[in-house]
Amino acid sequence: MTAAPLPAAPPDLSPEELDRFYLALAIEQARTGWDEGGVPIGAALVHQGQVLAVGRNRRVQMGSAIRHGETDCIERAGRLPASVYRNSVLYTTLSPCYMCAGTALLYEIPRIVIGENRSFQASEELLRSKGVELTVLDDAECIELMRRMIAERPEIWNEDIGEEG
Amino acid sequence: MTAAPLPAAPPDLSPEELDRFYLALAIEQARTGWDEGGVPIGAALVHQGQVLAVGRNRRVQMGSAIRHGETDCIERAGRLPASVYRNSVLYTTLSPCYMCAGTALLYEIPRIVIGENRSFQASEELLRSKGVELTVLDDAECIELMRRMIAERPEIWNEDIGEEG
Repeated sequence: MTAAPLPAAPPDLSPEELDRFYLALAIEQARTGWDEGGVPIGAALVHQGQVLAVGRNRRVQMGSAIRHGETDCIERAGRLPASVYRNSVLYTTLSPCYMCAGTALLYEIPRIVIGENRSFQASEELLRSKGVELTVLDDAECIELMRRMIAERPEIWNEDIGEEG
Repeated sequence: MTAAPLPAAPPDLSPEELDRFYLALAIEQARTGWDEGGVPIGAALVHQGQVLAVGRNRRVQMGSAIRHGETDCIERAGRLPASVYRNSVLYTTLSPCYMCAGTALLYEIPRIVIGENRSFQASEELLRSKGVELTVLDDAECIELMRRMIAERPEIWNEDIGEEG
């Protein structure tokens, strides 16, 4: 895989290989966020095989209270017609918080692929109750990114999920 | 009331008068948003009598998919300790969409004062089920702002709530 932005998936991947391919774009964003001193959570928005945007948590980098991985990604995708969101898949390295879940519900994104939900899980029951298809890949790299985050930057992590430090 | 940003409430207001006072700040934001060509929805975040920030929908102004009135307000308030959100009230001219409701849930904002919910309502049941106190003021000016919006700028409004134009 090249480091080019918004790459297309190689042909002939199985559905799970495709999910892993797009999740890898989100993981790359999470790693970049960690290197920037931030929260290592990333996301990608994919519409019928086309990567519309990638994003990452920018709480530290932008002093932001609303730029989680998923919301940053959706912001970077720009203003889109409803029909595009409704045929897109959102990839995220970590199970979405309520803000990001609510953003997916607002735009009726029908499917979310989640890198892992061991480190954090809040909204999955809500999302499923509204008909969103969730696929949890239980990815070792996503788990390790969060393990390191919680161990080394607990204050920022707590802030990011609205918890007392 | 002066046009100064983030004014303090006059003394000796009743609880409902206080809510109307802070809602008026949100309405002022909504009017500004309309005059800018945008979606006329505004918000204010108030912590123990201190206005932390006001905000307005900036879909048009910033080309944003995530800057609703409430999220713009929370973004403008900056990074805050969990304890501040948990003792704040969010004022909004219109009943929150799922994204904005989810943002309030993420930060455990305990109370939301809603200008009106006749033009749009999606998340109130969810918010109440999570223990958020909602006060709906059924404000005529908020209703009129949305009536004009839906009549004169229906495409932007539909886009803003993830509906087909």
